[in-house]
Amino acid sequence: MFYEDRELNEECGVFGIWGHSHAAKLTYYGLHSLQHRGQEGAGIAVTDGKKVRDHKGLGLVNDVFAPKDLDELVGYGAIGHVRYSTSGGNSLANVQPLVFRSQTDTLSLAHNGNLTNAEEIKRDLESKGSIFQSTSDTEVLAHLIKRGISHTFKDNLKAALNVVSGAFAFVLLTENELIAALDPNGLRPLSLGRLGDAWVVASETCAFDLIGATFIRNVKPGEVIVINDEGLHSDMFTTEVEPAICSMEYIYFSRPDSDIEGINVHAARKNLGIQLAKEAPVEADVVTGVPDSSISAAIGYAEATGIPYELGMIKNRYVGRTFIQPSQELREQGVKMKLSPVRGIVEGKRVVMIDDSIVRGTTSRRIVQMLRDAGAREVHVRISSPPIKHPCFYGIDTSSSSELIASKYSVDEICEEIGADSLVFLSPSGMQEAIGRNPAMKNCGQCMACFTGEYPTHISPETALPHEKDLLVSKGG
Amino acid sequence: MFYEDRELNEECGVFGIWGHSHAAKLTYYGLHSLQHRGQEGAGIAVTDGKKVRDHKGLGLVNDVFAPKDLDELVGYGAIGHVRYSTSGGNSLANVQPLVFRSQTDTLSLAHNGNLTNAEEIKRDLESKGSIFQSTSDTEVLAHLIKRGISHTFKDNLKAALNVVSGAFAFVLLTENELIAALDPNGLRPLSLGRLGDAWVVASETCAFDLIGATFIRNVKPGEVIVINDEGLHSDMFTTEVEPAICSMEYIYFSRPDSDIEGINVHAARKNLGIQLAKEAPVEADVVTGVPDSSISAAIGYAEATGIPYELGMIKNRYVGRTFIQPSQELREQGVKMKLSPVRGIVEGKRVVMIDDSIVRGTTSRRIVQMLRDAGAREVHVRISSPPIKHPCFYGIDTSSSSELIASKYSVDEICEEIGADSLVFLSPSGMQEAIGRNPAMKNCGQCMACFTGEYPTHISPETALPHEKDLLVSKGG
Amino acid sequence: MFYEDRELNEECGVFGIWGHSHAAKLTYYGLHSLQHRGQEGAGIAVTDGKKVRDHKGLGLVNDVFAPKDLDELVGYGAIGHVRYSTSGGNSLANVQPLVFRSQTDTLSLAHNGNLTNAEEIKRDLESKGSIFQSTSDTEVLAHLIKRGISHTFKDNLKAALNVVSGAFAFVLLTENELIAALDPNGLRPLSLGRLGDAWVVASETCAFDLIGATFIRNVKPGEVIVINDEGLHSDMFTTEVEPAICSMEYIYFSRPDSDIEGINVHAARKNLGIQLAKEAPVEADVVTGVPDSSISAAIGYAEATGIPYELGMIKNRYVGRTFIQPSQELREQGVKMKLSPVRGIVEGKRVVMIDDSIVRGTTSRRIVQMLRDAGAREVHVRISSPPIKHPCFYGIDTSSSSELIASKYSVDEICEEIGADSLVFLSPSGMQEAIGRNPAMKNCGQCMACFTGEYPTHISPETALPHEKDLLVSKGG
Amino acid sequence: MFYEDRELNEECGVFGIWGHSHAAKLTYYGLHSLQHRGQEGAGIAVTDGKKVRDHKGLGLVNDVFAPKDLDELVGYGAIGHVRYSTSGGNSLANVQPLVFRSQTDTLSLAHNGNLTNAEEIKRDLESKGSIFQSTSDTEVLAHLIKRGISHTFKDNLKAALNVVSGAFAFVLLTENELIAALDPNGLRPLSLGRLGDAWVVASETCAFDLIGATFIRNVKPGEVIVINDEGLHSDMFTTEVEPAICSMEYIYFSRPDSDIEGINVHAARKNLGIQLAKEAPVEADVVTGVPDSSISAAIGYAEATGIPYELGMIKNRYVGRTFIQPSQELREQGVKMKLSPVRGIVEGKRVVMIDDSIVRGTTSRRIVQMLRDAGAREVHVRISSPPIKHPCFYGIDTSSSSELIASKYSVDEICEEIGADSLVFLSPSGMQEAIGRNPAMKNCGQCMACFTGEYPTHISPETALPHEKDLLVSKGG
Repeated sequence: MFYEDRELNEECGVFGIWGHSHAAKLTYYGLHSLQHRGQEGAGIAVTDGKKVRDHKGLGLVNDVFAPKDLDELVGYGAIGHVRYSTSGGNSLANVQPLVFRSQTDTLSLAHNGNLTNAEEIKRDLESKGSIFQSTSDTEVLAHLIKRGISHTFKDNLKAALNVVSGAFAFVLLTENELIAALDPNGLRPLSLGRLGDAWVVASETCAFDLIGATFIRNVKPGEVIVINDEGLHSDMFTTEVEPAICSMEYIYFSRPDSDIEGINVHAARKNLGIQLAKEAPVEADVVTGVPDSSISAAIGYAEATGIPYELGMIKNRYVGRTFIQPSQELREQGVKMKLSPVRGIVEGKRVVMIDDSIVRGTTSRRIVQMLRDAGAREVHVRISSPPIKHPCFYGIDTSSSSELIASKYSVDEICEEIGADSLVFLSPSGMQEAIGRNPAMKNCGQCMACFTGEYPTHISPETALPHEKDLLVSKGG
Repeated sequence: MFYEDRELNEECGVFGIWGHSHAAKLTYYGLHSLQHRGQEGAGIAVTDGKKVRDHKGLGLVNDVFAPKDLDELVGYGAIGHVRYSTSGGNSLANVQPLVFRSQTDTLSLAHNGNLTNAEEIKRDLESKGSIFQSTSDTEVLAHLIKRGISHTFKDNLKAALNVVSGAFAFVLLTENELIAALDPNGLRPLSLGRLGDAWVVASETCAFDLIGATFIRNVKPGEVIVINDEGLHSDMFTTEVEPAICSMEYIYFSRPDSDIEGINVHAARKNLGIQLAKEAPVEADVVTGVPDSSISAAIGYAEATGIPYELGMIKNRYVGRTFIQPSQELREQGVKMKLSPVRGIVEGKRVVMIDDSIVRGTTSRRIVQMLRDAGAREVHVRISSPPIKHPCFYGIDTSSSSELIASKYSVDEICEEIGADSLVFLSPSGMQEAIGRNPAMKNCGQCMACFTGEYPTHISPETALPHEKDLLVSKGG
Repeated sequence: MFYEDRELNEECGVFGIWGHSHAAKLTYYGLHSLQHRGQEGAGIAVTDGKKVRDHKGLGLVNDVFAPKDLDELVGYGAIGHVRYSTSGGNSLANVQPLVFRSQTDTLSLAHNGNLTNAEEIKRDLESKGSIFQSTSDTEVLAHLIKRGISHTFKDNLKAALNVVSGAFAFVLLTENELIAALDPNGLRPLSLGRLGDAWVVASETCAFDLIGATFIRNVKPGEVIVINDEGLHSDMFTTEVEPAICSMEYIYFSRPDSDIEGINVHAARKNLGIQLAKEAPVEADVVTGVPDSSISAAIGYAEATGIPYELGMIKNRYVGRTFIQPSQELREQGVKMKLSPVRGIVEGKRVVMIDDSIVRGTTSRRIVQMLRDAGAREVHVRISSPPIKHPCFYGIDTSSSSELIASKYSVDEICEEIGADSLVFLSPSGMQEAIGRNPAMKNCGQCMACFTGEYPTHISPETALPHEKDLLVSKGG
Repeated sequence: MFYEDRELNEECGVFGIWGHSHAAKLTYYGLHSLQHRGQEGAGIAVTDGKKVRDHKGLGLVNDVFAPKDLDELVGYGAIGHVRYSTSGGNSLANVQPLVFRSQTDTLSLAHNGNLTNAEEIKRDLESKGSIFQSTSDTEVLAHLIKRGISHTFKDNLKAALNVVSGAFAFVLLTENELIAALDPNGLRPLSLGRLGDAWVVASETCAFDLIGATFIRNVKPGEVIVINDEGLHSDMFTTEVEPAICSMEYIYFSRPDSDIEGINVHAARKNLGIQLAKEAPVEADVVTGVPDSSISAAIGYAEATGIPYELGMIKNRYVGRTFIQPSQELREQGVKMKLSPVRGIVEGKRVVMIDDSIVRGTTSRRIVQMLRDAGAREVHVRISSPPIKHPCFYGIDTSSSSELIASKYSVDEICEEIGADSLVFLSPSGMQEAIGRNPAMKNCGQCMACFTGEYPTHISPETALPHEKDLLVSKGG
């Protein structure tokens, strides 16, 4: 699947740094490396020990920040956020970090994930007179903290973290500390690094590489890390934890140069391709992958089968946000954007097309047809993950979950639907094995919810949309 | 080498269409697929049979055209252009198509290549009272036509085409015809296609694929093609021709999904990699290519040697024109942009790094260092073309020709300079063979000037900059 | 004094309309006519009976709204706001109407004036867990309403209006009603009008003229007016009222074509000029006024004295927000912006220069000097209001109150300071008489605070800045 | 008539400076003061003695220049231009100064006026192979110079100035000199001033006042002034001159603070009002002028008649280029822009409304109606110039000349058409006398063409549009 046409959309990437005189600039660079996790909005909040400043906007990191914006973000501690969001008139209010200024202090907050009980909490707080400034689920955490009954910020935070449920990798910034916290299942990745004397946290380790920081360790499920001028202090807000990191982070979301829990994403994908070759070999002339996220799996598949790996299609870069889409009439005449087949490679060939997942099936159908139009004799589709049958409530855009093709059709039916000569998905166990996380853990420590409906947290029926209730397989149920 | 950091820059891509009611829109899409040939400016001129309209601007095709701009470009014939240009206060005047409006008619003109005698012609015309509106060499053609003594436009055009020398793939548009013309050496690619009843010309065939057009044939060296409502008419402005297409089109410039003279670019590059494996094998653990243009050669090298191909480095997409560059201080601290190494892949490994060319050597040195910093045990550099020792006068930016590392140093010295464990360039004959053009022709029909100094046209000493004269090996000399 | 260089700045203008299918567009036009009351930001909120939409931005009304923005503001009830604000990184959050969306309903709020006890209320509410989204004093009203204990919105609103003190002309919009409310002193103007069947409220009647509406009556001090589909309903939130409208509205802020409490502003200003002629005649050749706000008084002064009124200086229009200011060096060489003297008029003449007020004195000094440089033989300054000696806490920017020249110097000293040949201010009683409001009321129903220090409401010492406490003459004290 | 709704539009203002280290910045300020002469485009060209740089754009001076643009315009000699132009896709090419760069030198050119034989010259030059880059008449001068047969630039310039005819105030800039030239009738104003050691030329003297320069003298009809490092040199390109400055410069175009030929524009307008009072008194209660250009005449009329001058209508400032116009429906409901009546002033009154001219009559009708709607009992219109009956070929936009109401109707008919109670125009002789130029000269040295059809230059029939030929009264010459 290629990034700009993602049918699955995750909500965010977060970054934080403490103890560097160029905190905002390094956050800017860090956000660049996380840009694939959200292209709709970006923001940075920074503290100089006395005052929290922030700058946010809609669009790419590049578009949001001008040099003078960064220059004005003076300080040595910062957090940043890139966001995927459904568009909307007022969406600037939802761009993070959310910043809450009171007469005495400022709290800034950035979140990757999704809180599954946010609406219930919000309803309760509004009935008590609270006013929310955004429609983001993230904001409830701030209100819970402010209404906390302890005299210390950290205790109120820990209490609040125990009230919210779902998936959350939080970074918080006040005038004098940076805080990172991860949900009890560790559903989203969050890593800790060092850059000289400074501490860094980021959704993905590629952000460390880009700024020259060194990976130290992952933030633990249930952990809250407080970093201030006195150093780093780790605490647990709960020890009832059960690691279940989102499988799709390996399969599709994260950048190939990131390591998640010690496993390189490109290597994991290549293994998925190798495993797929074992489970589903086929006689063919060339192997090709859908750019960008399926290239690694395609290389693995080719290596394992001995069929040559080729650039069977290439992506049209430069198709930006302001691109003028072809009309229906022109599309029917053959104008295509984003992906072009390489006729010289596929013409007359039996092609294995590797993709990382199938969501609605429309993209797959389009690509298969495009390869055939370019002269492919056969098109065999191999998917480096199991069929996605259940909605995600942990931060993946489920707006289209009713359209999950695998929740309605069998593999044979999907094969016919997308027009392939054959179609095989990777097995759930093959996937777990290929990624290679801890076999001693349940599901090897991976969240399998979208494949099996087994959700690691409780999902209240009201969270699910009506049509989704059938797809919901309750935890432990 | 990766596109956005090109050390070699070509000047343009051209596109033309005749006989389609959405001429401007299809040109817009066509220019998108040629965007890699020039990111500094873009323009479209269109005719409805009565009036020529145009719209041009600085930046990417995306940035230059808003929907209403395209809507206003009404007509059934159009030409378009994407441009690489050195920046400058007045550069909008140089964005093509150049449009010349007189009281009686309009001539629009787009050019890929470089005229080697433009300055001499211009000096002569200015002394006769002509005023030039741009600093572009292209404009001389219009003045030569306007001062022609024949009563027909075509005869004046043919006369003018015989006066200019160098590399040129021209498309011209008047109120009632589209014209394409190619220099006697065919130094730049130019292809002819059909889309239903409409005719299409483009610098690369990938533009045909994107709009659903069918490739018909290449424009011939010395040919001038006139397309109007009565159909297509071919003529030769000279038959003293000697095919010598720019080798770098195969090696680096063109898109992998384009075919040039019947040879697919990705396939040619993969062959270059295979040939390179034959000429320069090495014991190693992984093969990696510099994205984007060296990926194909790397795949070929891996396939031929059996060493696994891996994503040893990845490109940071989203680093746009407005990107805020890291300061020297931050760069020294390790902040890097554009390319990131994949530590999980290269750590502890012996890496073969494939690149398509070395110009100044600075990028190569940076990449080698980056791989070592990420833990590579050995870095063996293999280049899928011969050393570039001589300036190009045919449309490649020679501003840095004085800095051509291979014109000053031996291969061993370059190896040391870039810090590699070993360095091998492909041999000239190996390159010709791998690309696979007509062995019956001189140099297999390829221009070898930048490698050997053998220029297919006469280059007057004044064209060359002082420091370049030493590098100049005159034709037939 | 001329608008763009105001040394006194008021905070806002408000507008509201109910019952018109083009509610947002008419609000846009209404805000245009109130643009002189605030150029820093503008916004509109609109309801279609089900949903409240809003659009806001920094800059002039013109800059903030594009046609599509207005088109998206569908509905038949609307409020709007233009704002003066001190600039700042986050000031967009302060642009009004403030919009508060809860799960059940939406409240939108626009305010002209200043609440003198906002900080105390805010401190109290934050200690109870409320989070404020802006630094605007206006927001406290929304929180007070939301925490109200009644079951009806109106009762909670009335309670809240009794808690806040200071100057306030509020317009509020919910899904299904428009509300207007005025403080017990009526410190800011607020008028009610009709446009066909629709109701309109606005800070100034010029907004009615511009949209073709008819003036009905002024909103009364202490009144709250609720307008919904059932019509208009008037109520009082308090009857402890004492009219004391801001004198500066007549003297300087309001547009000359507005009527305030039945008195035309231009006519009032002309009367101030006539009165000034009576109190302070002088032998001279020409009378001139500082554009734009002092023209009317100058005409009155000329008419009463028989000295010809002339354009002694003219304003450079087109000096917009992005204007590049001359450097100190160029200013010293004589480059001047905003005002130009008309040499042909003032050269060799004895000039009476009428201005409406003196705040810091720097502008006056500059103008006197400019007239002398243009050849004026004598410059007699006449001010159509008394000396401003005390800070305003009711919505006028008091940031510079420490610099009020009249709080530190005598009239003679000021005359010397600004370099005039003579200087006379209008007397307080002359001012009251000339404006011509109700002589039966205390101070004729005008607020005299900035002239006399007699504040119509209680001002707590903490509201005043340290240096201002000396200037503060407490009410009834 | 008010500037932003001008029914007559002049084409330009020019500015030049030589010998000041901030040449570009001072030109920027100078253009500001000339902004009323053209709001559609602006540009500056500057020389540092070696290189001519330029920056141009569409829109107000404010919009066209950012600080960095000015910073890049390094040099001590500069020319600038503000332009009125009919909008059009390609109009940037017409924004002046036009800049012509050859291999040896650069010529930059700015023009106020209109050449009446440009089309004929252009046709001739194109037939000889010249290519024009703009559709501006100004460009012919450059081509004539370049094709000149003399060896000196100045002689070729003088020859060219003798070929073009019509109205022209030119400023030219080369690498090493600034040149100013005026047509033999001096139809457009052009003045010479000094700023320290630097020389300044400008269309109006208000530009001198703004930058602190001193007026020296007017450029003479037929004069060419060359300024370079050796000083100022004056020459005549012809002595067949007959002064005939455009009357409308006094009546309407120029700024009231400018002096033209030693006469202050405000004073001239006031005299026109006084003369109008003598010729056309009326019983009335108030005199009011249409802002901005008729205020001076209204003051004169009031002073002479003793009827009080009042602000009977005021202009809505802030109605900028991006203003969203009210729909027809809203206009019919009474929404008005630009001008508002002051009801408190005109209600129940007999109003004398002074305007400077009537072109199509539509604006006058609208204003009369607006005053009546605001309650005026009678509206007497007095125009401070004679009826405009003939098209202008000297730089005033004649696009609407077919619609000149006075060319088709008698004064009585116009009175009825605009709905006034009475209407009187000033007499031609009264106008000449009131402005007060040299009575010894023909028409007192004023161009009367638009009033009488007596054109000071030859107008070839082809210059006039078909419908205009009837209006053309050929120069008896």
